[in-house]
Amino acid sequence: MLRAIEGVFERYGFSPLQTPALEYSDILLGKYGDDAERMLYRFADKGGRDVCLRYDLTVPLARVAAQYGNLPMPFRPYQIGPVWRAEKPGRGRYREFLQCDVDIVGSPSLLADAECMAVDNDVLSALGVTNFTIKLNNRKVLTGLLESLGPAASSGENANGILRTIDKLPAAGEKAVRRLLATDNGLDQSTIGRIFEFLGIEGSNEQMLAGARRFFGPSEAGAEGISELSDVLARAAGLGVPEDRVRIDFSIARGLDYYTGSVFETFLLDLPGFGSVMSGGRYDDLISMFVGREMPAVGISVGVDRLFSAMAELGLIKPSKSVTRVLVAPMSTEAVRPALESASRMRAAGRATEVYLEQAKLKKQLKYADQRGIEAVVILGADELAAGEATVRLMTEGEQIQVPLGDLPARVASLLG
Amino acid sequence: MLRAIEGVFERYGFSPLQTPALEYSDILLGKYGDDAERMLYRFADKGGRDVCLRYDLTVPLARVAAQYGNLPMPFRPYQIGPVWRAEKPGRGRYREFLQCDVDIVGSPSLLADAECMAVDNDVLSALGVTNFTIKLNNRKVLTGLLESLGPAASSGENANGILRTIDKLPAAGEKAVRRLLATDNGLDQSTIGRIFEFLGIEGSNEQMLAGARRFFGPSEAGAEGISELSDVLARAAGLGVPEDRVRIDFSIARGLDYYTGSVFETFLLDLPGFGSVMSGGRYDDLISMFVGREMPAVGISVGVDRLFSAMAELGLIKPSKSVTRVLVAPMSTEAVRPALESASRMRAAGRATEVYLEQAKLKKQLKYADQRGIEAVVILGADELAAGEATVRLMTEGEQIQVPLGDLPARVASLLG
Repeated sequence: MLRAIEGVFERYGFSPLQTPALEYSDILLGKYGDDAERMLYRFADKGGRDVCLRYDLTVPLARVAAQYGNLPMPFRPYQIGPVWRAEKPGRGRYREFLQCDVDIVGSPSLLADAECMAVDNDVLSALGVTNFTIKLNNRKVLTGLLESLGPAASSGENANGILRTIDKLPAAGEKAVRRLLATDNGLDQSTIGRIFEFLGIEGSNEQMLAGARRFFGPSEAGAEGISELSDVLARAAGLGVPEDRVRIDFSIARGLDYYTGSVFETFLLDLPGFGSVMSGGRYDDLISMFVGREMPAVGISVGVDRLFSAMAELGLIKPSKSVTRVLVAPMSTEAVRPALESASRMRAAGRATEVYLEQAKLKKQLKYADQRGIEAVVILGADELAAGEATVRLMTEGEQIQVPLGDLPARVASLLG
Repeated sequence: MLRAIEGVFERYGFSPLQTPALEYSDILLGKYGDDAERMLYRFADKGGRDVCLRYDLTVPLARVAAQYGNLPMPFRPYQIGPVWRAEKPGRGRYREFLQCDVDIVGSPSLLADAECMAVDNDVLSALGVTNFTIKLNNRKVLTGLLESLGPAASSGENANGILRTIDKLPAAGEKAVRRLLATDNGLDQSTIGRIFEFLGIEGSNEQMLAGARRFFGPSEAGAEGISELSDVLARAAGLGVPEDRVRIDFSIARGLDYYTGSVFETFLLDLPGFGSVMSGGRYDDLISMFVGREMPAVGISVGVDRLFSAMAELGLIKPSKSVTRVLVAPMSTEAVRPALESASRMRAAGRATEVYLEQAKLKKQLKYADQRGIEAVVILGADELAAGEATVRLMTEGEQIQVPLGDLPARVASLLG
């Protein structure tokens, strides 16, 4: 699964990057928002340094991009590594899990946003997942919405708080979110009504864009977000993302504070309620928090344990019992040395090969091969050795073929195909 | 580098395994010895649980093997993951680093020990490292030595302490180790003299074995270790490990308490003093500490950051500027859509392809390709589009070829080879 994902990443010209799991706490704090910060694994290390296990791969990447100021831009890394969140584990949700991220740092081009969606589409397709929707929104639409509602809704931390509340809509439902917008975010009923009027815009992507254009005046901040959405949609289609897989959804806010433009989440249509398996967005201001100059960036992240868990529920994971394709079975102590040599030659020819490690009867060795789903057993008994041959048993067919020892790798290769 | 290592692991029939980075402290404590335990990153998590970041991949594997008691044996996992040690960073030595381990759990066969050495040899060979020595010893030889010296040397924790002192020999030198054996381990001068008499046995592997046989009586515990060394040497040779790459070295103790039989360390002969880049051994009692029944095991670990650092010093790392092989260069906004479509088709054909993200002059786009070591640039200008063609520029040769858009992936493939 990871190799398929890496393969897609590399076809888009992303290069591997690894960053440490531990970061100084002041690097991570103030980047995600309160809900996320409560999930940080934070402690003092042996030298009394205040450190955290990373919460995602994005903020560490931003730290690296800021620290190594002379990186050639755009910088296109991909990362595969564990992240930690101290939350209640659940279906496909673990405290430690693996993220696979691509990021394009140093370009404001909306082509980069569309590339992230194309990577999303290609990763799922490469894994055999076909029935999914990439939900697309733009933070500028939401901040534009809040600006249109006046200073109480659009000022700094309160705006982020409102977006985090809106982000709870799929999980908590409209009623709870309406209540939280009043109690936690201090909005009056008419403002809340206006928010839900906007979130209620429905229809095809074109209809959603048209509805939002009508909602905002052409000069309003939200209009820029609408224009970006329209551009990103066209670019993603150009990159081969099927148009019916992308849906504008104005309620997609993403819970993390650092997003500034496009935001995406990906849902498996056969697992309603499972949550997003791939998500990301544009974060043009995060790196500049470290480096003090503009460095726009966009990225997307596969939650690979989540996705694995989902694919297992959908029956899309074919469990493999072993990577071994050939077992070499020495039938006596005299046969061990030729068995080892035969195995070495099979491995040198690129064939995954095991030698049965103990002295055992053939029946036991064949049973082992059968349990592991091993396709061929190379049997080396006294008769075979005297003749300079091996018996190759094809496990599925039960067929046995005599093969001269010198021809083993080539013959086994042709027998296994 | 990781893919080359994984390739070797899989050819030996090892299957990928991932375990969490965080373990309960009581899983890790009491397994490594005092020196190692001082290097644990230990803290209380949000739920007040006493946890550690893993120190190696071996003890977590042992915990897993014990926890999932019904694993088919032998269990042959490979693991690639970060480990943490709170020590002073140095040349090739980091507080967080990546280990790549293979382990064979559930077999007492010395063939398994030899396989670990063959994996060691094949990993380094696959990475282009040729001038190295695998140093081999056996804990039973050392514990046999201590037993022959009487109860003061051979009792439990004191024996482990003596082995950890002997393990410091390459770094600290004979004089310091003699002093530590007296002050820290309470040995008298005659006992220390006897230890150095044994450690002073020299010569070829055969001569070392013969010398050690003479040192021990045939009935002594150390003799079993000598016999195992002899067997493992023969098996490793059978698996194709060149005999001149393996050296018996009685001073190899490995600093960790859990080893019980074979121990290996691997040194790069062109970097004296760099330390071991691959090491491991047999740990027959570790899993039984968790599970209460016998479960022999052996494994080996590549310290991949250390090895990378060493290979960089040796000039064996060829830095690659980018994985991208083809840049698609749209010369106008009208060219963007065909550029995206061309890039998609190149990617679908397995070619690592980038689209230049901004609107820029050709010169700037070619400079970008040159800086990244990109081999071919697909130029889409107004003339090309009108003709339904692209201009493919081969960066090294400077040659430019007109190619019909429909033929792009196939023609670029044949041009790049």
